[in-house]
Amino acid sequence: MPHTIPAEIGMPLAEVDTPALVLDLDAFERNLDRMSASLAGVNVRLRPHAKSHKCPQIALAQIARGAVGVCCQKTSEAEALVLGGVKDVLIANEVVGAAKLSRIAALAREARLSVCVDDAGNVAALDAAVGREFGVRLDVLVEIDVGAHRCGVEPGEPAVELARAVAACRNLRFAGLQAYQGSAQHLRKVEERRAAIDGAVAAVRASVGGLRKAGIPCGKVTGAGTGTYAFEAASGIYDELQAGSYIFMDVDYGKNEWTESGIPRFEHSLFVWATVMSRPNAERAVLDAGLKASSVDSGMPRVADDPAVEFVRISDEHGVLKLNGAKGYALGDKVKLIPGHCDPTVNLHDNYVCVRGGRVEAIWPITARGAVW
Amino acid sequence: MPHTIPAEIGMPLAEVDTPALVLDLDAFERNLDRMSASLAGVNVRLRPHAKSHKCPQIALAQIARGAVGVCCQKTSEAEALVLGGVKDVLIANEVVGAAKLSRIAALAREARLSVCVDDAGNVAALDAAVGREFGVRLDVLVEIDVGAHRCGVEPGEPAVELARAVAACRNLRFAGLQAYQGSAQHLRKVEERRAAIDGAVAAVRASVGGLRKAGIPCGKVTGAGTGTYAFEAASGIYDELQAGSYIFMDVDYGKNEWTESGIPRFEHSLFVWATVMSRPNAERAVLDAGLKASSVDSGMPRVADDPAVEFVRISDEHGVLKLNGAKGYALGDKVKLIPGHCDPTVNLHDNYVCVRGGRVEAIWPITARGAVW
Repeated sequence: MPHTIPAEIGMPLAEVDTPALVLDLDAFERNLDRMSASLAGVNVRLRPHAKSHKCPQIALAQIARGAVGVCCQKTSEAEALVLGGVKDVLIANEVVGAAKLSRIAALAREARLSVCVDDAGNVAALDAAVGREFGVRLDVLVEIDVGAHRCGVEPGEPAVELARAVAACRNLRFAGLQAYQGSAQHLRKVEERRAAIDGAVAAVRASVGGLRKAGIPCGKVTGAGTGTYAFEAASGIYDELQAGSYIFMDVDYGKNEWTESGIPRFEHSLFVWATVMSRPNAERAVLDAGLKASSVDSGMPRVADDPAVEFVRISDEHGVLKLNGAKGYALGDKVKLIPGHCDPTVNLHDNYVCVRGGRVEAIWPITARGAVW
Repeated sequence: MPHTIPAEIGMPLAEVDTPALVLDLDAFERNLDRMSASLAGVNVRLRPHAKSHKCPQIALAQIARGAVGVCCQKTSEAEALVLGGVKDVLIANEVVGAAKLSRIAALAREARLSVCVDDAGNVAALDAAVGREFGVRLDVLVEIDVGAHRCGVEPGEPAVELARAVAACRNLRFAGLQAYQGSAQHLRKVEERRAAIDGAVAAVRASVGGLRKAGIPCGKVTGAGTGTYAFEAASGIYDELQAGSYIFMDVDYGKNEWTESGIPRFEHSLFVWATVMSRPNAERAVLDAGLKASSVDSGMPRVADDPAVEFVRISDEHGVLKLNGAKGYALGDKVKLIPGHCDPTVNLHDNYVCVRGGRVEAIWPITARGAVW
């Protein structure tokens, strides 16, 4: 396809064509450093979620600063990450279906791979698939529902029972518990998030206690996200943190309260670069970035550096700004938008245009873009 | 990338891995026929919107059944369509910025290309860009705001003034008016949509009248969408219809009332094929298709053929069904979802898995997926 990269290395940002997904490398690296600093002296490992960025370069940058590996959601994401040089990937999700289980087994030859389960039939199918791949053993975590009510078995006895089934499999190794409280991440108040994680920690303790009683070693407890990870880190029971969005931040996470959470204020490093393509009147500026450039599942994008201007309406290829008297926004002017939700926005783009000091320093392919299988 | 196509020609649909974007070819072709039948004997041309499908194969199927060409929104979409063999493309949108204007001028050598304007400075820049491409002339339409309040100049005198500026350009040909009432398409009641188009028609008449008085020939009036096109067709003033979604339909369009609109009931032909990946309890089934497989900007997807089941929650890679006592939905079962909004859902996928009689008949690449420039 022609023109799939709207930028060249060395180009001033002002010349980068739009819409483009722009990563401010200085801000991104400061976020990496903030995360490292916030975990200094805490006895937990960081395994950031790669579903946020879908990019081996970013995974490797996280690992270079101390992450033990990454997690992801899909088999095809894991394939893209391993192909890109990542050596330790947890699929923090269930994988169902013969075709995908065969791919998991094959991929486990190439990297340290682990996967989650919440069903005994699925455990048996996974064991059989891995057994067909000579000499492979796979790490398997039992996912428990710690309050998000999505996937996962109930904490306590059901978790112990499924762990026992995993441990009994010839080709699987029971590696611990997946305990992610997804619905806590965007509760706005610190105390609400803390309370939700208190609940998750109680569920984890009950399950770990049950495993101990049953004589099943629980290798690790893994979970947490950008909105709550300090609470899981302080719990003494979580071993690994799966925060992902901290590298980019987005409008939705920006609405959380952070003070006294123990979590640093990460800064916005990811932007949708857009052009004013129509100026029908003094109050309305129309941008060339719509639903296909910036996802609105968690709300509208926001204009960076200009809080007076409102992003009021979006359609497939247009974003409408209400200027509220703001100056500028002439036809052809370029505008930096902060995405409403970074993960699905990243998934719309083929590349990060990585910028430092106003110039394009690198172009990083989003190789797991569209990798939903 | 490995595994970017979850299907092979000849494979039973049941074996197609998930999530996949499935096109029911019989339903799709019936929709094409319904559109043709509904326009039989009406003196208007069909120029379907290719932003809905982003696929040359579909554009060519539309043209084979009588469409004069297609329209699209972006320069890169036009490039993908022309590269795929489409000979007549209207970019039904403004194009701003030197880089894109040069691409437009170059593309006009390869196909009959037209583009919209709503700004005199942009007209001059377009004229200059086309002038640098030897021997090219470009058709240009003036977009008027017929009630959607997005892009476009005001109807009447401002439209005439801009048309005069286009007509005065050495390398541009004033080709008529772009008059799309986007905000009317999803008004639920037929009478609301009819009233909105009455307003658009009045705005068009005022502009066409002004052009006539000014002695500027108005080649054509183009606009309309799936929700209203019968009203524009009956107006006697629209020459071309730009409906796009009729080929697929989606949950959002399905909520419109259609009876007595003069528009046939198009059927759902586009589906997201998903797998039950977790069954935590009797009432909850979790699918492997989330925000990155089906866009929710216009509401949740719906389970096809099972109205009792509710799609209640979505996250990046999960969709949660409330079964309300429905049978089935065992782990590994596959489910057909109707997308909430077809256009941005198509833009998430790389291929249509085209199915007829329960077997994969073709795989059509979505070559303009991600073509937002």
